[in-house]
Amino acid sequence: MDRFANIFRYFQSNSESMMNGICGILALASIRIYNSFQFICPCLPIYNTIYGIGVMFLPPIILFLCGVIVNKHSLLMLEEWQRPEGYRSKDASLLSYMFLAVVQRAALSPAVWLVVCLLDGKCVVCAFSTSVDPSRFANMSECPGEELLSLLSKVPCKDLPSEHLQHHLTFPRNAVYRYLRSISQALGWTILLLLILAAFLARCFKPCSKHVIFLQSRYWSNYIDIEQSTFEETCCEHARAFARHSVSQFFHSNLADLKTHCSGMADLTG
Amino acid sequence: MDRFANIFRYFQSNSESMMNGICGILALASIRIYNSFQFICPCLPIYNTIYGIGVMFLPPIILFLCGVIVNKHSLLMLEEWQRPEGYRSKDASLLSYMFLAVVQRAALSPAVWLVVCLLDGKCVVCAFSTSVDPSRFANMSECPGEELLSLLSKVPCKDLPSEHLQHHLTFPRNAVYRYLRSISQALGWTILLLLILAAFLARCFKPCSKHVIFLQSRYWSNYIDIEQSTFEETCCEHARAFARHSVSQFFHSNLADLKTHCSGMADLTG
Amino acid sequence: MDRFANIFRYFQSNSESMMNGICGILALASIRIYNSFQFICPCLPIYNTIYGIGVMFLPPIILFLCGVIVNKHSLLMLEEWQRPEGYRSKDASLLSYMFLAVVQRAALSPAVWLVVCLLDGKCVVCAFSTSVDPSRFANMSECPGEELLSLLSKVPCKDLPSEHLQHHLTFPRNAVYRYLRSISQALGWTILLLLILAAFLARCFKPCSKHVIFLQSRYWSNYIDIEQSTFEETCCEHARAFARHSVSQFFHSNLADLKTHCSGMADLTG
Repeated sequence: MDRFANIFRYFQSNSESMMNGICGILALASIRIYNSFQFICPCLPIYNTIYGIGVMFLPPIILFLCGVIVNKHSLLMLEEWQRPEGYRSKDASLLSYMFLAVVQRAALSPAVWLVVCLLDGKCVVCAFSTSVDPSRFANMSECPGEELLSLLSKVPCKDLPSEHLQHHLTFPRNAVYRYLRSISQALGWTILLLLILAAFLARCFKPCSKHVIFLQSRYWSNYIDIEQSTFEETCCEHARAFARHSVSQFFHSNLADLKTHCSGMADLTG
Repeated sequence: MDRFANIFRYFQSNSESMMNGICGILALASIRIYNSFQFICPCLPIYNTIYGIGVMFLPPIILFLCGVIVNKHSLLMLEEWQRPEGYRSKDASLLSYMFLAVVQRAALSPAVWLVVCLLDGKCVVCAFSTSVDPSRFANMSECPGEELLSLLSKVPCKDLPSEHLQHHLTFPRNAVYRYLRSISQALGWTILLLLILAAFLARCFKPCSKHVIFLQSRYWSNYIDIEQSTFEETCCEHARAFARHSVSQFFHSNLADLKTHCSGMADLTG
Repeated sequence: MDRFANIFRYFQSNSESMMNGICGILALASIRIYNSFQFICPCLPIYNTIYGIGVMFLPPIILFLCGVIVNKHSLLMLEEWQRPEGYRSKDASLLSYMFLAVVQRAALSPAVWLVVCLLDGKCVVCAFSTSVDPSRFANMSECPGEELLSLLSKVPCKDLPSEHLQHHLTFPRNAVYRYLRSISQALGWTILLLLILAAFLARCFKPCSKHVIFLQSRYWSNYIDIEQSTFEETCCEHARAFARHSVSQFFHSNLADLKTHCSGMADLTG
């Protein structure tokens, strides 16, 4: 149990490491949600595109907003930005550093969702199956345009044996499916490579940027945690003293009424 | 539970052993990702080659960059390389030692991916099925060139019964598949042997290189960990003292407001 | 859980017992790798022999090198062998004892691979199917030499119905397959018997050899472990003292900047 206690202590030590932990959990949760989510393509010409693109882009927006909400620093940054300028001048570089840190952490789980979605490929197959030209896979010249669209929209659904399909035995359903899925996977790997490349370059150029700002923001983040806990403690002390005072006053002032109600109470206050 | 605690303590003891652990996890993860990844060959002449080579080489690049990013030493090395030269001169041998250590650890998981990919053989079959000359397996002289290319590109896909295949019953699909896969496996074992041989020679010639640099980098790695934790502690001490000061000031300055709200507060501050 | 803790404590007690554990894990891993590896014979006259013999002998070489690399004693032995001869003369018997110990442990997993491979028999069938004379199983005199070679090379592949096979219905495919596989298994059992016999004799004659060398190498192995851990501890102590000095200097030098930012900080430094 020691190791769990250690991990837990690490994440509780200050709010910054807790934020890192929450972002990691959100990224893992996005994979888990994607896997447990039943993707059901409507297999109708226009609905397909809307549904596919919706599943691909709506959850990342939700996850991004979640990432911003759970991050304490976003609140801190807004407070720093809006406070009246007193003795201490606002440090623009510190503000931009915090803004970047918040956006980076919040963008992690949407990126994970998008990459998992593209590597799985179901969304792309559903969204763009009607945009594929099937003539490159088989000779479909004898098939009228509208019927072809209906056939293409049914590509993502294996359980829909359309009556057209029986007329067009040569319709290359599997070929279209494979084509779209491999393009989706290629896109997913490429985006993943670009993201990692960006992270790599950011890491490489970090020593070039001012190291003091990083240490300063770290000190500030620590300070905020400690100020809050100190405020909480001082609050409790004051409140306890005040509460004791109030309760004793209540007992003293109500003694007259209590005496009239029950004479036995008098013995208690003696 | 003791042994888990021991393992965990070992990985937490300093950042270097943690890096080793992370590299091992990345290598295992690359096997896991390969197994959970659905390889879907598009089965179209040019797409095949791009997709197969992409799956074989893009993820290793991603894994390599990941390995460099998660390694604390890469950051350390960059900082040492870029710092202005003060009283302490830069040690080129220490820098090159750290660079090699970082590259070695980062190259582990890409190598694992490549070897697993070659031993599995699907990527090679997909990428190079159109480059095989089928005349060595069966007499395909009566088949025109373009049709032959289309047939060869469908070798990796068992679920694509092309209408050509029914015309050419003698097309040696299984023979081509076996041929490519066995070559891929032979290549995989050979690369694995060369890698292990390189590691073996590196290990053998290690006693010949300067042992002092190894001990120096080890001391440095330890020092960085301890400096960071000491900075964190000192930060917390300073922040706690300052926070106590601020909170007590806040309570004193707000007393006037509190007095007007509730007269009972006056007794507490007395 | 106690017994697992005990086993784990034993493997952690010194590096020698850990080496034994790693060798056992490598031996088990070699069985696991063989089982998960998909053996696919190319079924082409010359490729067959190269592929079969490659799978039989390349992985054991790799496993042997792995066994040498993971063994700490091999490094120790090299260092002892290469060091300049100072006051302490090199002990040849100790060196040879360590060399034998390293080779013995490293040879365990290649032996396991070879025996498993021979008992399974697929490699031998693939490698030597073209070397069998089929005339002992059936009358194949009317079949030309080149066609016979092509037929024999297709013995390991059940899924390749060659057009030749339909012409030569009398070709004894199953007989050749059974013949080669039984020879392979006989060889496997014989090698296993010889290895166990060698181990038995080595164990029997161990009390006759010098016991002092064994004790000396054991002491040495223990000493190396303890020297390393002592070095690590001393490193940490030195680093901690130096880090405390550096961090306090950083805070003092940055006080001027902090004073201008917040006047309340002045009280803290007083």
